[in-house]
Amino acid sequence: MAESKPKLYCAWFCPFAHRAWISMLAKGVDFDYIEQDPYNKSAEWLAINPRGLIPVIRHNNKLIYESHVCIEYIDEAWPNEPRLLPKDPYQRAKARIWGDFVSKKLIPPYYRFLLKQSPEVQNEAKEQFLANVLEFTQAMDQPGPFFQGKELGYVDIMFAPWAYRIYILEHYRGFKIPETDEYRRYHVWAEAVKNHPSVKPVQQDKDRVLADAKPYAEGNAKSELADAVRKGSTIP
Amino acid sequence: MAESKPKLYCAWFCPFAHRAWISMLAKGVDFDYIEQDPYNKSAEWLAINPRGLIPVIRHNNKLIYESHVCIEYIDEAWPNEPRLLPKDPYQRAKARIWGDFVSKKLIPPYYRFLLKQSPEVQNEAKEQFLANVLEFTQAMDQPGPFFQGKELGYVDIMFAPWAYRIYILEHYRGFKIPETDEYRRYHVWAEAVKNHPSVKPVQQDKDRVLADAKPYAEGNAKSELADAVRKGSTIP
Repeated sequence: MAESKPKLYCAWFCPFAHRAWISMLAKGVDFDYIEQDPYNKSAEWLAINPRGLIPVIRHNNKLIYESHVCIEYIDEAWPNEPRLLPKDPYQRAKARIWGDFVSKKLIPPYYRFLLKQSPEVQNEAKEQFLANVLEFTQAMDQPGPFFQGKELGYVDIMFAPWAYRIYILEHYRGFKIPETDEYRRYHVWAEAVKNHPSVKPVQQDKDRVLADAKPYAEGNAKSELADAVRKGSTIP
Repeated sequence: MAESKPKLYCAWFCPFAHRAWISMLAKGVDFDYIEQDPYNKSAEWLAINPRGLIPVIRHNNKLIYESHVCIEYIDEAWPNEPRLLPKDPYQRAKARIWGDFVSKKLIPPYYRFLLKQSPEVQNEAKEQFLANVLEFTQAMDQPGPFFQGKELGYVDIMFAPWAYRIYILEHYRGFKIPETDEYRRYHVWAEAVKNHPSVKPVQQDKDRVLADAKPYAEGNAKSELADAVRKGSTIP
């Protein structure tokens, strides 16, 4: 199955791309990392991938895209341990339910909070984000430290790129996840994720990340994602 | 794994619930169908499922929800043939990519077209829906008749409940998928899906479905889905 060396088309700053990148590292896949600038798509890149999506895996002359699909693909095309999804059907369903929760309930309010300029909308988004982080926290396995137990897996990877860059919200919005009892398990999780050997290498220089996030915080970022948040429509 | 008889909490009119229902039938699972009224949630139902979601599978004292997660759960908890997802990792990724396309690119414009009252917005939604149905069609396996070949599978089930009730859009908006060459493969697909032995039994009386859809077509339906479409936010 995995006979040819896969290429991962990535962007250093893109949290969705980080999901595929972390998964490659976690599975120990031998891959070529290819940096792409989604704001300045090369002709070569558009010839392969007309929609110019990031991340994309090119493997055996096929393209795999959508970051959550990439995680499962990497887990299935390289079926060695560690498994990013558990083996038990209910635990697999639980991984997908909470991965979906990240997409629908954590990421949209995160970006509304960062992009929207009205203090009322920011406040509504912050409250929503906090309430949903709490619900996410309460669904975590005890004692963890990861979402479903001792090993880094699908749900962790789904939210990791926003969790280890939560300092963006601290810097631009003065926001922190509270250090209260009800969020204690969240902080245990976030520390474990941030320090995992497959997650550490993808984290970038903080100043560079903050500079990249500035157009978002000022509400004038030019990207499909930013447009979707401004219009309030489904995140692509 | 599958030692106890599963219960499927469903609503006869809910297309998301139909996905789980079709999957149970396609896999030949012995299950109890339990009709629930999401507009009038019973105390018993809320005790089991505080969020009152539809569909929910109750199996081995666990709850599985989110309709696309239910399809994969049913396929994995009862691993007999037919498999709703293919075995090959790339084909599995393809199923998930196009299932995700249904959620993000077909269902939102479908509901905007049905719910929104302004002719301009209806027209924009119709054009979007048609363009996206064409993209979906062009990704289908040749010769089919199903999305990924000879057997009904994940992608088919993801869109089936809207495809076999496309008459709602005909009745309320005078809309039909064109009978042109470029949509020919779509009609082959839609006929095969509608007539599949696991899809036929879940289809309901047309007049009853049209009456149920009326508040949507008149823009005043009271549901989380309708609220999301009116606000333009992510469909729950």
